[in-house]
Amino acid sequence: MALIVQKYGGSSMATVERIQEVARRVLARQGEGHDLVVVVSAMKGETDRLIGLTKEITDLPNLREYDSMVSTGEQVATALLAIALEALGGKAHSLLAFQIPIRSDSGFKDARITGIETARMRKLLREGRVVVVAGFQGLDPRGCITTLGRGGSDTTAVAVAAALRADLCEIYSDVDGVYTADPNLVPEARRLDRVGYEEVLELASLGAKVVQIRAVEMAMKHRVPVMFRRAFQGGVGTVMSKGDKEMEKIVVAGVAYDQNECKITVARVPDRPGVAAALFQPLAEANIAVDMIIQNVSEKGFTDLTFTVRREDLSRARRLTEAAARKLGAAKVETDDQIAKVSIVGMGMRTHAGVAAKMFQALSAAGINIQMISTSEIKVSCVIDQKYTELAVRELHRAFELDKKPAAAGKPRARAKK
Amino acid sequence: MALIVQKYGGSSMATVERIQEVARRVLARQGEGHDLVVVVSAMKGETDRLIGLTKEITDLPNLREYDSMVSTGEQVATALLAIALEALGGKAHSLLAFQIPIRSDSGFKDARITGIETARMRKLLREGRVVVVAGFQGLDPRGCITTLGRGGSDTTAVAVAAALRADLCEIYSDVDGVYTADPNLVPEARRLDRVGYEEVLELASLGAKVVQIRAVEMAMKHRVPVMFRRAFQGGVGTVMSKGDKEMEKIVVAGVAYDQNECKITVARVPDRPGVAAALFQPLAEANIAVDMIIQNVSEKGFTDLTFTVRREDLSRARRLTEAAARKLGAAKVETDDQIAKVSIVGMGMRTHAGVAAKMFQALSAAGINIQMISTSEIKVSCVIDQKYTELAVRELHRAFELDKKPAAAGKPRARAKK
Repeated sequence: MALIVQKYGGSSMATVERIQEVARRVLARQGEGHDLVVVVSAMKGETDRLIGLTKEITDLPNLREYDSMVSTGEQVATALLAIALEALGGKAHSLLAFQIPIRSDSGFKDARITGIETARMRKLLREGRVVVVAGFQGLDPRGCITTLGRGGSDTTAVAVAAALRADLCEIYSDVDGVYTADPNLVPEARRLDRVGYEEVLELASLGAKVVQIRAVEMAMKHRVPVMFRRAFQGGVGTVMSKGDKEMEKIVVAGVAYDQNECKITVARVPDRPGVAAALFQPLAEANIAVDMIIQNVSEKGFTDLTFTVRREDLSRARRLTEAAARKLGAAKVETDDQIAKVSIVGMGMRTHAGVAAKMFQALSAAGINIQMISTSEIKVSCVIDQKYTELAVRELHRAFELDKKPAAAGKPRARAKK
Repeated sequence: MALIVQKYGGSSMATVERIQEVARRVLARQGEGHDLVVVVSAMKGETDRLIGLTKEITDLPNLREYDSMVSTGEQVATALLAIALEALGGKAHSLLAFQIPIRSDSGFKDARITGIETARMRKLLREGRVVVVAGFQGLDPRGCITTLGRGGSDTTAVAVAAALRADLCEIYSDVDGVYTADPNLVPEARRLDRVGYEEVLELASLGAKVVQIRAVEMAMKHRVPVMFRRAFQGGVGTVMSKGDKEMEKIVVAGVAYDQNECKITVARVPDRPGVAAALFQPLAEANIAVDMIIQNVSEKGFTDLTFTVRREDLSRARRLTEAAARKLGAAKVETDDQIAKVSIVGMGMRTHAGVAAKMFQALSAAGINIQMISTSEIKVSCVIDQKYTELAVRELHRAFELDKKPAAAGKPRARAKK
């Protein structure tokens, strides 16, 4: 008998019929003799509906109130699944973050889980109940409701699995695993059977919509094995676990893209110590994540600074940056929301040189100009004009032959060599 | 400087524009130098939308889960009002039941408030904030969310006013006070300037949609003065307070009707001690309120029992009654949801005879058959065929001349005499 934490995303919970189908599958899994904790997202579209209501009032809502509101999507979904489970003769009990509690910091809209109590969940499991947990939400030290950022339900699921020392965390969505690229863009994209935490971490942070990045960090830290599966279908998925030797033979595991970032350029900033701090401190204080940062010298004594932020943070980031730029005496602030970031990811890059060069060559051959470059141990990212996203992803998938099963272990593929 | 608790109902919160208008009015009132606590209902239609979702799954949902779900309507409205207040430059902070907490028993779907902590509200008021409180919800001893029954936000408002020893509780809705009858049905209906707790208690319990009955009980118990006003308009409303001498000169204060009850008849029950207990105990345990009860002898050794329950409880009540009736050996159980209850209410009835007779006569003259009768110190109710509701209310309003201002104090009107 295993303790399994399942997570169902918004599209699995899109309608009452689907929720009833989820309930049937949960009870079937429980019937196999397992203890079940089920973490759910809001019904598809609900979170956007709620955000739309706040946008009618202001683009800059009080974030404490915003979180209290958008967290209701999961509250509704959680209760509906519990009702469906009981209507089918099962025993269920829903728990919201404040009832468990799932504690978080006060970083509203993007809070981090700081701890999860397990006593109440364990008691309900001992009573033979399916415990239905609201994803996406936390409780801050002052008793305010927080949310964990888009896709935060994945984090909830992995964190709950870690806290309960669950045997497995199953993440159900509308894709059946981790692919070498977005199958909507690249028909030849191939599902990976196994993938390392680090690879998924990069793929997720680069826009592949498999799972929230924090969920992967959490899984990696606590060594929670996670299986990504398609809801409402049998079949294998992708198992994410600690990278093993065999995996490391694959040079590039996948191509990812992200159209959800915007570029901000601060032009002609007087080049003196403290400029970067003065620009980025206000953004950090406003809890705005900055991704890529590039600094060029434009002319003697002046510098240009370019960085990217999430699309939803653009208006706040622009306002804060303009204020900081004025104080610094910068010439102007420009923004560009027509960009995309394409990336290649693979643990094999650690030991294989020339991968970045091959990427630049492939983009160049397709006539795509590179605006920004960023690298890490296991990925290379390029910012390009958004309209070339699809072309870039396909060309990279082809250049690295990702449609083909990797060569046998111990035999690095020729194309990965310098 | 006064401490004022305001309550805005669902139609005042129907759209984002109205919520913004509520915010402006709240800040204007605060600007007069008052401390403001604002209790809100869910946006109009939202609670019904949520209930509709559960009905797609089952007519008999787990009530703990049901409450957790429907309470989200107020959670959303509360946060939106706080966001609107802050967007207008005000200082606001929303509080849900669990955050205050507003404690209740575990009578899910119809819970009773057992206590309200005031420390957190007082702290926020001292900070100059408008405290926005979610109506309709409570927290039971095990930490589960409860709801207080339809219209429960009124109860929340009065209970919060009582706990804070507020100077005034203002209940805003789409009517400007308490009327002698439903103005939609009776164009001559007149707004009462003042009304006693007991009268409103009867009017509300008889279906006049002024305010939830428990809110009146709570106001009466704690002597909270309540003003009923129309939202978004100036003008006077109706003040509800302890009945004074002048008020008692009015024999009949108003005519009410209720189309939300259904009749259940248990035919040919063996007439022996314990029959009523065996029938009504299961209903009580299921938290189903039984209103009128009539017992007739049908033939020797047998009895017929008829009672009314709220429409939303009918399917549960029927199931429980049928089970009990089988055990008792009753002939059959019949239900009728095409009934209405019309009532006349007035504190003056205590001292004026003949009021009931006059009511029966008026209904009879209109050709309306009376199915059940129930009386109390200050009201008489008759159950009739639902299709005659409008006719009955109009005829009663006319018979008791409720469109006319009452005669001067000390001069009982002739028509009230026997």
